Amino acid sequence: MEKLPVAILGATGAVGQRFIQLLENHPWFEVSELVASDRSAGRDYADAVRWVLDGEPPTRIRSMRIKPLDSNLESPLVFSALPKEAADPHELRLASAGHVVCTNASLNRMLEDVPLLLPEVNAEHLALIDIQRANRGWTTGALVANSNCTIMPVVMSLAPLRQFGIEKILIVSAQAISGAGYPGVPALDILDNIIPYISGEEDKMETESLRMLGKLNGDHVEWLPAVVSATSNRASVIDGHLVNLSVSLKSQPRLDDILEAWAQFRGSDPVSLLPGAPEEPVHYFEQPDRPQPRRDRNYGKGMTTSIGRLRECPLLGYKFVALSHNTIRGAAGCSILNAELMAARGYISGFYPEIAASNPDAVMA
Amino acid sequence: MEKLPVAILGATGAVGQRFIQLLENHPWFEVSELVASDRSAGRDYADAVRWVLDGEPPTRIRSMRIKPLDSNLESPLVFSALPKEAADPHELRLASAGHVVCTNASLNRMLEDVPLLLPEVNAEHLALIDIQRANRGWTTGALVANSNCTIMPVVMSLAPLRQFGIEKILIVSAQAISGAGYPGVPALDILDNIIPYISGEEDKMETESLRMLGKLNGDHVEWLPAVVSATSNRASVIDGHLVNLSVSLKSQPRLDDILEAWAQFRGSDPVSLLPGAPEEPVHYFEQPDRPQPRRDRNYGKGMTTSIGRLRECPLLGYKFVALSHNTIRGAAGCSILNAELMAARGYISGFYPEIAASNPDAVMA
Amino acid sequence: MEKLPVAILGATGAVGQRFIQLLENHPWFEVSELVASDRSAGRDYADAVRWVLDGEPPTRIRSMRIKPLDSNLESPLVFSALPKEAADPHELRLASAGHVVCTNASLNRMLEDVPLLLPEVNAEHLALIDIQRANRGWTTGALVANSNCTIMPVVMSLAPLRQFGIEKILIVSAQAISGAGYPGVPALDILDNIIPYISGEEDKMETESLRMLGKLNGDHVEWLPAVVSATSNRASVIDGHLVNLSVSLKSQPRLDDILEAWAQFRGSDPVSLLPGAPEEPVHYFEQPDRPQPRRDRNYGKGMTTSIGRLRECPLLGYKFVALSHNTIRGAAGCSILNAELMAARGYISGFYPEIAASNPDAVMA
Amino acid sequence: MEKLPVAILGATGAVGQRFIQLLENHPWFEVSELVASDRSAGRDYADAVRWVLDGEPPTRIRSMRIKPLDSNLESPLVFSALPKEAADPHELRLASAGHVVCTNASLNRMLEDVPLLLPEVNAEHLALIDIQRANRGWTTGALVANSNCTIMPVVMSLAPLRQFGIEKILIVSAQAISGAGYPGVPALDILDNIIPYISGEEDKMETESLRMLGKLNGDHVEWLPAVVSATSNRASVIDGHLVNLSVSLKSQPRLDDILEAWAQFRGSDPVSLLPGAPEEPVHYFEQPDRPQPRRDRNYGKGMTTSIGRLRECPLLGYKFVALSHNTIRGAAGCSILNAELMAARGYISGFYPEIAASNPDAVMA
Repeated sequence: MEKLPVAILGATGAVGQRFIQLLENHPWFEVSELVASDRSAGRDYADAVRWVLDGEPPTRIRSMRIKPLDSNLESPLVFSALPKEAADPHELRLASAGHVVCTNASLNRMLEDVPLLLPEVNAEHLALIDIQRANRGWTTGALVANSNCTIMPVVMSLAPLRQFGIEKILIVSAQAISGAGYPGVPALDILDNIIPYISGEEDKMETESLRMLGKLNGDHVEWLPAVVSATSNRASVIDGHLVNLSVSLKSQPRLDDILEAWAQFRGSDPVSLLPGAPEEPVHYFEQPDRPQPRRDRNYGKGMTTSIGRLRECPLLGYKFVALSHNTIRGAAGCSILNAELMAARGYISGFYPEIAASNPDAVMA
Repeated sequence: MEKLPVAILGATGAVGQRFIQLLENHPWFEVSELVASDRSAGRDYADAVRWVLDGEPPTRIRSMRIKPLDSNLESPLVFSALPKEAADPHELRLASAGHVVCTNASLNRMLEDVPLLLPEVNAEHLALIDIQRANRGWTTGALVANSNCTIMPVVMSLAPLRQFGIEKILIVSAQAISGAGYPGVPALDILDNIIPYISGEEDKMETESLRMLGKLNGDHVEWLPAVVSATSNRASVIDGHLVNLSVSLKSQPRLDDILEAWAQFRGSDPVSLLPGAPEEPVHYFEQPDRPQPRRDRNYGKGMTTSIGRLRECPLLGYKFVALSHNTIRGAAGCSILNAELMAARGYISGFYPEIAASNPDAVMA
Repeated sequence: MEKLPVAILGATGAVGQRFIQLLENHPWFEVSELVASDRSAGRDYADAVRWVLDGEPPTRIRSMRIKPLDSNLESPLVFSALPKEAADPHELRLASAGHVVCTNASLNRMLEDVPLLLPEVNAEHLALIDIQRANRGWTTGALVANSNCTIMPVVMSLAPLRQFGIEKILIVSAQAISGAGYPGVPALDILDNIIPYISGEEDKMETESLRMLGKLNGDHVEWLPAVVSATSNRASVIDGHLVNLSVSLKSQPRLDDILEAWAQFRGSDPVSLLPGAPEEPVHYFEQPDRPQPRRDRNYGKGMTTSIGRLRECPLLGYKFVALSHNTIRGAAGCSILNAELMAARGYISGFYPEIAASNPDAVMA
Repeated sequence: MEKLPVAILGATGAVGQRFIQLLENHPWFEVSELVASDRSAGRDYADAVRWVLDGEPPTRIRSMRIKPLDSNLESPLVFSALPKEAADPHELRLASAGHVVCTNASLNRMLEDVPLLLPEVNAEHLALIDIQRANRGWTTGALVANSNCTIMPVVMSLAPLRQFGIEKILIVSAQAISGAGYPGVPALDILDNIIPYISGEEDKMETESLRMLGKLNGDHVEWLPAVVSATSNRASVIDGHLVNLSVSLKSQPRLDDILEAWAQFRGSDPVSLLPGAPEEPVHYFEQPDRPQPRRDRNYGKGMTTSIGRLRECPLLGYKFVALSHNTIRGAAGCSILNAELMAARGYISGFYPEIAASNPDAVMA
């Protein structure tokens, strides 16, 4: 199978670097266009980037020439790691020009016809693409969004509990510094410290969670009818957002029922067959002091949400802790999984991965 | 005025070192006996101690000879920084022998006749000493306890809100590594990490808080009739326990009423006159990203509880963040304030600080 | 005595904040003008500043209005915390207009007629002010400089060893993040990490050290005729630059001679009488694992250089470790001490501190 | 090919865990016996271990029963992660009983007939095994040692420079906390700090380096005739020992000659063919701020030594920085590579890996 050429917008930033790192050796996709702001455009990637991940950029990427933001692109699939301001004009322009655009910005995430996609949780929301294309007169173009990175461990751990009737959700986060991008958090602010505030974060957590956990109803998503209270903290951790959760569940399951729900949780086909899907979407640790960000963020190649410490909450009924890698599952890795799902479902024009060819029923269900 | 000789049990440990540091130049008390385990007994302090605080031990202390744990002591007042196992036999023995013992161990903290004292919050509980002495046949001896260090910012910030009828309290902590003593938390466990579990901590937080906020009723304390849910985390912070709190209040005050209650909060006389009492027991920060452990733990010489981010909680009504220095206000500093209150109230036989002499009414009220 | 009004240039930055903090309650100087860039000018200090030090700005300062950089100032004494680019036009303009300007920028530090002053080490260099005034036609104005903050522990620890004939100096630093200002070092770069490079730092260390340790010879400083090799590293430390030093000494003293030289080292009068001078300019720690940045940077209120681990070096003869607080002794604190020395020596027109009045001989020597 | 059964002594400690992690899926060796102290012996591995590496122990290992230290073992090859005291009786006993023992303890490392092996650097030293067996009357048993973990980046980066005549070596280290084992360094000692002292470390660095870089001469190793001065520091880094080096080289090569020597450096056959050998034994980074511990310690799966910042040293001639992963290349990974070399050379009785069979000349050279 020939690989699908993909473009990366914002290729020199921290999330852009993650895209490059995660797409190296991807079985379906191949990075063929790098796009960045004027400061970098026209230069070779190795010269323009200040590489902040491990080691060095992949050899093949080092000598690729960076294109300017307003370029017309050739790749059918575009991963955008642009910040809000830059995302604004360019993402819609490219979707309108026929590209499938996977955005990580918060900008258009809550538009009614833009799926806020998390394959194991709400693959059905992908049908919004049909609405979106009809609404906007697009044929091959599409815009699909990732959620805020902090809500990821919340939604992943709660999705299997929807069957018990989620009514109240109280979240207190301890978020990694990479969540703020690069250069992001000054070391003077966070070493030997915690910052009990992240601008705009709590609002996103209280709304995006309910939309992601909601049901598709015709042309829109019906939000989960629960009440959320979210509190954000920045911690002295490189990668990995940890959340302490208290929840109330209508049917009052036993703790064992909840453990069983997590153990059984798998994305429906074709999600579990996608190359970027982890074996376990969620993993429960028995040890009382796990999960921990540094030790468990890379579980399932950074795509598994780790859970621990399920116990009773005197106020809301149930308490536990959950953790996701914020720049893999919470950003670039999830975007790639979203794109894989779109490809498997036939939403990327002219590209049919083997999985789509060999499982037409499952895939097109 | 001649200073009162005091002894420190567990003088070489981390909390013992804090006692020495804080009592240097104390206007009423003077360290005159150092007590530690067999490993240190018989040696000069400077030789036995591995000093983990700033700089070097005070010059006068360096050459003091350390006494063994089973010594008979001469100091009327004893500060104990012993861990649970060592505290068990020795604290009660010394109280029984006529010493006023201020304990930091959790061992006897919840005995009905032992005051769990926090002067600004429950100075009236000190009357339990009379019950205690009657119960146990003691005349000059007494045992008074400090709370768990993590509950300190909870109790300090909630005490001024008792007037609004506290019904529910949800706490998620981020606790400093010094809370585990020395050597305590291995660096391999906490650098670039959070540990979402501290053994035994949540139980203490859920019970001690209610006793401390309760009312004295004859010979016992009537606990505050609220429900508490506590979650503990260890963070990569040297000193300073931070708690995110959600609370429900019966009378549903406006946010301004709460700010006003904090601004007005002062210990009643003689508490506010004690040498170790901070000017403000609680201080509210207007900046949205304060308080922070590293920057605000030393506010009010480590005795003020810092509060910030008061806002509505969609679930419980009110949310805010609070911070106390865990080895000053949460341990040694609070013990010293407790002892000052006991002295001012005449509970330390033969010692009358000026404040007691000059304000007999206030003091003996 | 009435206090001397002083201005602070760059008052909202990290070093500017240190000036404000250290000058609070200064016996001679009083902050009366705050100057900053356009972004802050015209606003009250509390509104413009993002306070990154402990607690809150001093109450009196909070409501002071910030002046723009091109203001004409009234304060005879000006402390400048401006970065290089901003320092360029304004510092010389103000000196030329009659102000005594204490600069922390590297810009004019190595001009032949600008003293690179460190009172305990080279108070005699202050005579360059007379040359400077003659050269430039100034009467009351002057420009005096601080050294690079990393060379501070080197120069302070080597000054007492000049008597032994310093020939070779090999320095490897571990520098605190506050040395890069605010926001400075991104947390993503330094948490769980060391950066073995700081742009421009090694050159400064190899030259400024020799000028500071040199002798005044008529109208210029004759550099110490030694060879220096410096290597810079950034470490995960908030404050406190630590240097590992190997040195060769011509007269090959015994280790005890070196210890004695450090123990005896004091600034000559009036330096040791200045309000900002620490009791011990250098302090030797006997414990093998001291000094350490976090525990010892505040020794002597951050003005003492801590030394430890003196031993033989198989290659250069002698090895030891030294530590100075980089934003106190290495920046604001040293600037203030320099200004105190200038006042005591009568270089600040119209201002005669008591020390100058009562010790005319010592002072004017 | 059937895999060779191996035993791990000290299997529950930090280095023991690394052995288990690195041997999972090893092409030649298979963990079949776990040995630990009385506290753990008799228990299943998952119950006895406090796993401090990422994720969870490999499934197959979790249920293995731990044997006591004084067991008679069946595995021909034994990796020992025992600390000095425990290593003393057991390692020699097992070697004497016919096992090939790869030790990580410092205990017998400098015995004349024990090779201090680093395959790319001194594979020829392996011939000491023949001497050792003759000396001690062993036939299949052998004892081979790893060096101190901090000297690893020194020896790896200097080995290619032996051709230029190494005369003087000055080393200043910044060592990771994992170098002290688990629990090892208390977080209270190292967060926001550097400790300028590690007991016993400097002596080892000054001697082991010269033996490792030396030449085999009949029945012993002739040390490299150079002078070494080493200084040790502990830094706030999880893994990765970084060293700043100054060296003098007799033939005074140009900087480019040195870069070329590093680029060309490869272990001689069969070393470069061993499964654990990295593609590049040393890698030079062009960027001025690399290598860095967190970002580059895993280069070459943790087996490559990263080098950067080659430049002139005003005192010794040349300066640069080097970095090795201390628990992979500096401990478990190197031990495994040593064992692979022994197998390839036919020193493990009855086990002939393909590489030995197919390259008899290269292997037996």
